[in-house]
Amino acid sequence: MQGSNPSATERDAAAVAGCRAMNLELADDRVPARGLTHCAPARCRDPAQEEVGSMTEYLNETVFTWGATPLKFGAGAVDEIGWDLAQLGARRVLIITDPDVAATGVPQRVADAAKAGGLTVEIYDRVHVEPTDRSVRDAVEAASESTWDGFIGVGGGSAIDTAKAVNLLTTYPADLDDYVNKPIGRGKAPDGPLKPLVAVPTTAGTGSETTPVCVMDFLDLQVKSGISHSHLRPNLAVIDPLLTLSMPPEVTAASGMDVLCHALESYTARPFHSFPRHTPETRVAYNGSNPISDAWTEQALHLLARSFRKAVLNGGDLEARTDMMLAATFAGMGFGNAGVHVPHACAYPIAGRVREYRPANYPQEVALVPHGESVSLTAPAAFRFTFPTDPGKHLRAADILDPRAQQATADERERLPAALTSLMRDIGVPNGLSGVGYGRSDIGALVEGTMQQQRLLAVAPRTVHDEDVEAVLTESLENW
Amino acid sequence: MQGSNPSATERDAAAVAGCRAMNLELADDRVPARGLTHCAPARCRDPAQEEVGSMTEYLNETVFTWGATPLKFGAGAVDEIGWDLAQLGARRVLIITDPDVAATGVPQRVADAAKAGGLTVEIYDRVHVEPTDRSVRDAVEAASESTWDGFIGVGGGSAIDTAKAVNLLTTYPADLDDYVNKPIGRGKAPDGPLKPLVAVPTTAGTGSETTPVCVMDFLDLQVKSGISHSHLRPNLAVIDPLLTLSMPPEVTAASGMDVLCHALESYTARPFHSFPRHTPETRVAYNGSNPISDAWTEQALHLLARSFRKAVLNGGDLEARTDMMLAATFAGMGFGNAGVHVPHACAYPIAGRVREYRPANYPQEVALVPHGESVSLTAPAAFRFTFPTDPGKHLRAADILDPRAQQATADERERLPAALTSLMRDIGVPNGLSGVGYGRSDIGALVEGTMQQQRLLAVAPRTVHDEDVEAVLTESLENW
Repeated sequence: MQGSNPSATERDAAAVAGCRAMNLELADDRVPARGLTHCAPARCRDPAQEEVGSMTEYLNETVFTWGATPLKFGAGAVDEIGWDLAQLGARRVLIITDPDVAATGVPQRVADAAKAGGLTVEIYDRVHVEPTDRSVRDAVEAASESTWDGFIGVGGGSAIDTAKAVNLLTTYPADLDDYVNKPIGRGKAPDGPLKPLVAVPTTAGTGSETTPVCVMDFLDLQVKSGISHSHLRPNLAVIDPLLTLSMPPEVTAASGMDVLCHALESYTARPFHSFPRHTPETRVAYNGSNPISDAWTEQALHLLARSFRKAVLNGGDLEARTDMMLAATFAGMGFGNAGVHVPHACAYPIAGRVREYRPANYPQEVALVPHGESVSLTAPAAFRFTFPTDPGKHLRAADILDPRAQQATADERERLPAALTSLMRDIGVPNGLSGVGYGRSDIGALVEGTMQQQRLLAVAPRTVHDEDVEAVLTESLENW
Repeated sequence: MQGSNPSATERDAAAVAGCRAMNLELADDRVPARGLTHCAPARCRDPAQEEVGSMTEYLNETVFTWGATPLKFGAGAVDEIGWDLAQLGARRVLIITDPDVAATGVPQRVADAAKAGGLTVEIYDRVHVEPTDRSVRDAVEAASESTWDGFIGVGGGSAIDTAKAVNLLTTYPADLDDYVNKPIGRGKAPDGPLKPLVAVPTTAGTGSETTPVCVMDFLDLQVKSGISHSHLRPNLAVIDPLLTLSMPPEVTAASGMDVLCHALESYTARPFHSFPRHTPETRVAYNGSNPISDAWTEQALHLLARSFRKAVLNGGDLEARTDMMLAATFAGMGFGNAGVHVPHACAYPIAGRVREYRPANYPQEVALVPHGESVSLTAPAAFRFTFPTDPGKHLRAADILDPRAQQATADERERLPAALTSLMRDIGVPNGLSGVGYGRSDIGALVEGTMQQQRLLAVAPRTVHDEDVEAVLTESLENW
């Protein structure tokens, strides 16, 4: 009565019907589910002329996965963390954070709240901002000096990513390289679920609290890679907008640009149904764009449109801070399943090859391009490059982000770049690669570094050649 | 650098600022985050005249929780279930289903897929449609005859809810009443996380695959109650639209009306920030409406607007079936965190006191008002009753669901009821309570049964008195 058990033939016929249905242009462009029943374009280009009987297998992917960390969200949420950890069965808990975050006192406040819940708590505060294989190994070694039955990552992506790796490597000890994605590592899957991990983000940026990945620099190889597995996803994210109230404007701008690029890159990513069909073993954490990720992304864009400028220009605006925190989480729920592509791929060498640039309100002892800045600098050119793959989605993103961009330019391809550069000028992002110290002579090395990020470039909605990256980077020397 | 540790005074000042910000009318009504920083209206009605120093505590809730089951979604997803269970660490698995679903062959197909993944699998197919305390105890007893390290619920809400209860009571054995919500039971929390549970919905209705609750009839008490705890939420939902292709139109209509009411009730539910402040121990699974639930609900409404009529009138339309499956899941992600109210509360006695009504394409040996029908019959009157609490949200829901309803009636309060009755007529839902055999003389007993559902009525956006329910039920005798 309530189900069916379709034969292979019925499935194939249904797939063709689905492809036919998808050829209809639907009137309501706010509805998210388009493309869900797409199958291989090569097979379905003209379903009327296809032999249904020949479609005994799908060539293309028909399945996507989606997951998100459960949330506790709101002002004061962090005060309840002791109870939440006890619910997860954790009694001896290690807080993992970096020195800058530790200096704000937030990790100590988290520790106090956890102790008030009857837990034993220690703080490890030596996470490297932009973690490296060495800093991750150091954290694992420090954590291994005692036994823990739970972890709390407090900070931005660096702290939360390091906490994921520590949880994995202390729960199922192995060499770090065993778990790192191929080809840098051996791509081993965890033997089972990890210990409880609670993420407490203190920036509205990374989205790491909802994603199943951790990223680090491999110092000897001068390359960025990481570990991706759904077991790495935190068990709970405690998101308290009060923690972001004192974040300086420069940090708010950079971390917000990371959120915005998460949203725009996952929204424009290659659709899940255009990948070759995976087996469950080979299906990756980054599925490509899909209707659930798109739904989250659009919500994130609405929030950013409303509150990004406000949060940078008036950091005490709790409403704007709350919107930004929610936007970061929503974008994480999108890109954490769909993936990111060209701007994030370019960001790795842009950050890695920095020479002298030292942004205000960041530590001044080392040169640094903040992650969000490094991602944003190529975004206008990157979305000009991806525009032809789905003009409708690019225009919709631009219209949500900045309805006035429609007036600013008659050229549809320029509408999203115009919305981005208008925002970046208002919030003080440097003007392109030249704004952080790069010149035309650096382009070759930056292209090389970008092309190493094949894991990300595979999620781009079109094939990315060296010359495409060269064009994107060259256009990005100055963005206005 | 990246966080803050606000003092109590800063938090209070920020809360006032937040309330001020919320008094602005925002131009873009699609943005979800309104109300996030609301605090007690009594304190903030006019923040300019408030003494900040007096706000040393929030009176009202500032925190909400949100969670959702990870998904594997798409045509053929169910074929991979063996691999997914193995990933969750399950090797000996019990499939829990009801006889009608078993007759479709789907549970056997799931069993075969799991066996192909190397698992040991048995099927328990004696779940009661609309589970009772007795049928749940029977299922627990049967499951306890062996040891299982994982469960699969295959079917509608009855099967999946029963699987949740079996998982709880075999993992942490106790009397069923220990775990049942107060005042029917003793409201005990599970001692820790449960064994892996995978949900395979075969109707696009219940949303049970993403919720942390199971509901059953208590036969001796003639009352419906259940168990609510986040540990009950399944670990994975495998959602395969192909399973719904042969669902008859009557079942599609009834289960779809359940989805629609989930969406509309959670969207119009009392906002989370209007509840008194909870402690983490007392915070319930149903938080009230919140911006994350609202986002999901709106997506569900868009999908229902596009595909509900199509799925009923042409069951072979895979695109429409896919939309309905996605809508059910989205609505579950909304109401599973926000809650449902008046129509679901009325549904319990409407289903429970049935005399002779036997809908087509349901089992004919017993009288039965399908759950989705019983929920939908009072929906037009219920949303007329809740309209004044938030006219904007009611109008927005109506406009998404049926843009033509704007022309159908000039009376704003009638717009959502008109959109509902137009749909219900098109898909063949009975015309009100009289359509399923009730008359004016039954109203008293139905009011009494509805008023017992205080757990649900507490989520309504206004206080619900006996005479309000009486008016709703009387209006619902005929809906057109």
